[in-house]
Amino acid sequence: MATINANFLKLKAGYLFPEIARRVNAFAEAHPDLAPKIIRCGIGDVTEPLPEAVRQAMHEAIDEQGRRETFHGYGPEQGYAFLREAIVENQFADLGIGADEVFVSDGSKCDTGNILDIFGPGNRIAITDPVYPVYVDTNVMAGNTGTADASGAYEGLLYLPCTAENQFVPAVPREKADLVYLCYPNNPTGATATREQLAAWVDYARRHDAVILFDAAYEAFIQNPEIPHSIFEIEGARECAVEFRSFSKNGGFTGVRCAYTVVPKSVTGRGPDGERVPLHPLWSRRQSTKFNGASYPVQRGAAAVFSPEGKRQVAALVEHYMGNAALLRDACSTAGLDVFGGLDAPYVWVACPPGTDSWGMFDKMLADAQVVVTPGAGFGAAGEGYFRVSAFNSRENVEEVCRRIAKLLS
Amino acid sequence: MATINANFLKLKAGYLFPEIARRVNAFAEAHPDLAPKIIRCGIGDVTEPLPEAVRQAMHEAIDEQGRRETFHGYGPEQGYAFLREAIVENQFADLGIGADEVFVSDGSKCDTGNILDIFGPGNRIAITDPVYPVYVDTNVMAGNTGTADASGAYEGLLYLPCTAENQFVPAVPREKADLVYLCYPNNPTGATATREQLAAWVDYARRHDAVILFDAAYEAFIQNPEIPHSIFEIEGARECAVEFRSFSKNGGFTGVRCAYTVVPKSVTGRGPDGERVPLHPLWSRRQSTKFNGASYPVQRGAAAVFSPEGKRQVAALVEHYMGNAALLRDACSTAGLDVFGGLDAPYVWVACPPGTDSWGMFDKMLADAQVVVTPGAGFGAAGEGYFRVSAFNSRENVEEVCRRIAKLLS
Repeated sequence: MATINANFLKLKAGYLFPEIARRVNAFAEAHPDLAPKIIRCGIGDVTEPLPEAVRQAMHEAIDEQGRRETFHGYGPEQGYAFLREAIVENQFADLGIGADEVFVSDGSKCDTGNILDIFGPGNRIAITDPVYPVYVDTNVMAGNTGTADASGAYEGLLYLPCTAENQFVPAVPREKADLVYLCYPNNPTGATATREQLAAWVDYARRHDAVILFDAAYEAFIQNPEIPHSIFEIEGARECAVEFRSFSKNGGFTGVRCAYTVVPKSVTGRGPDGERVPLHPLWSRRQSTKFNGASYPVQRGAAAVFSPEGKRQVAALVEHYMGNAALLRDACSTAGLDVFGGLDAPYVWVACPPGTDSWGMFDKMLADAQVVVTPGAGFGAAGEGYFRVSAFNSRENVEEVCRRIAKLLS
Repeated sequence: MATINANFLKLKAGYLFPEIARRVNAFAEAHPDLAPKIIRCGIGDVTEPLPEAVRQAMHEAIDEQGRRETFHGYGPEQGYAFLREAIVENQFADLGIGADEVFVSDGSKCDTGNILDIFGPGNRIAITDPVYPVYVDTNVMAGNTGTADASGAYEGLLYLPCTAENQFVPAVPREKADLVYLCYPNNPTGATATREQLAAWVDYARRHDAVILFDAAYEAFIQNPEIPHSIFEIEGARECAVEFRSFSKNGGFTGVRCAYTVVPKSVTGRGPDGERVPLHPLWSRRQSTKFNGASYPVQRGAAAVFSPEGKRQVAALVEHYMGNAALLRDACSTAGLDVFGGLDAPYVWVACPPGTDSWGMFDKMLADAQVVVTPGAGFGAAGEGYFRVSAFNSRENVEEVCRRIAKLLS
């Protein structure tokens, strides 16, 4: 009889977003009169139209698929050169990254999960708390953890609490870790990491021969010119870091699907005889064997993000969402709540009023204001006492959310 | 220091298709005058335009992405209901498969590789020989094998030789296996399995509590009404089989990317305490955690395959490629070679002339006729002495290939 991967049974049933959906649906059924008023600021999904330059490029690519002479079948598993080169030129100029170190995919969720395929057993995993749940759950599936305790923390993971005290960027720990997940600008807290903070992590990784898995999905939202957009802006990072990037949030690709992962040829892990093994050929082989490249029209659309029109249209989207973030920050702040994030990231991270916990605040916002937020505790134990408000929405909805927050908390 | 997955180091460097590309490039460089004459019948990639109904639906979906009211962000990880329902209605009517047992993805290569995520260690893996290399390589990566011997066979795998004697469909073995990979119509041999042959495998799987991983990527090419299109046409298969399907070869989606996997709720594996655990929630959780759904415009395109126009256009594509297969069969046969497949599959499997092995025939066809075929030995030891000719090409190219075969072998 075929054995199943028993690690899956360690996963807790209540994944955050399904639980939110369940509560929202239950509320809507119980209060059909209020259901139409619900505004969702929970899941971090974009709402505004796909940029015109992207649509235009995708239309053209689909027309190409209609002619034998320009038809594209299987493409390179690592992505087309036209996109890999545009990425390097526009995102990593002067950072020493080659186009053959960029791997195009259909999503950062896939990449951040699948990257564990190339790592072996026995690695000590460090993750921030609160954290994007995918990092944790994929490590549980891979057998890199024990079971979860009552608070939801998994045995064997090294949790790095992110709190108001450390401005949601953890100092390097005394313990050694082998893989470190960092996400800046951060989901869920909206915090950014300074050059010095990232340099301390690169230094830590090089001292311990650890690999940093750096998720930069929100880099386009950085406004402060001092904040690094890429881990590779830090000296030495090309020896110890892998970076994940996405077109989801800047280009509005959450439904269209395109992302990429940068694996410098100089990053290594330890082989069975203690030898250094470069990660680049392992990831290339993994992608060649278990992936068949991102959709051709989608890759054409992604490349259009870097055209002059595409850049203008993406900048306008970012400006729109960051304008929303400013309104949300202001509304929460005016209502007397402690507000974090939202300055260089599309998420506003808000301390619950005294005496209310994360899920309590979620329920209150839903019941009394018909606004869906994300309870901080859903992202980890250290997220308790906070809630996340997403700035991905129409201006009209955000203004209405601000009015309801003012009314609810005044 | 982060350990790497040492199983990757067991993989042989010379993956089949890169080795073919290397030899073709070397020939083209050495003979620039002959290079323009090269016709590729090697890799199984479609060549004809994407059906008009598919392009039309994709154009409309992209226009939808341009309006806030019809914009689609994150979709269900398992696929949109409109596509899952169309699949069941058109492909599995009366087979007892529910739409919630269908998981839409971006490719069967991904699915056949990723499915191993939900299985545990210690499973005995049976694969046919010759075989699609992805089944083997993903098991090597997952640690389900030992090292390869000189012939390329991996320790620990149960190889099921497919030969002219068994018409390229292996009888069930005496040994017990836990996971059995079957692909019919077959890549690379073009063979099909009869109802009785599949029933014997379902019976085997139920006796041993094995899971059959059934790859039906080529079902649309079946002409003989007696040949089953789905493993689920066999009584009892819903208790022991998972089926992979793709839009790549029928709809011409190799560059557009869409596929699906059927995991009936009644298929189980063994949990850590010996209990039966359904595979369905495991795969659903795997996809929810490590995948973000196939591209929305792509799913709309896939659904259009089932529209009246889409069906007519796909039927015309299949007719075109099967016409090619008939010509290729005839040419090889007339040249005195033993020919298999190509009647219900887009691949023709040809015995090499006496005294020539697979790679020898590959080199001869390339050097003397500028036709690229796939050496049978590249698919496994039992493929030695054969070569595969793909029917995916224009009619003009196929007619030219036939003339060259006649000239070369007459």
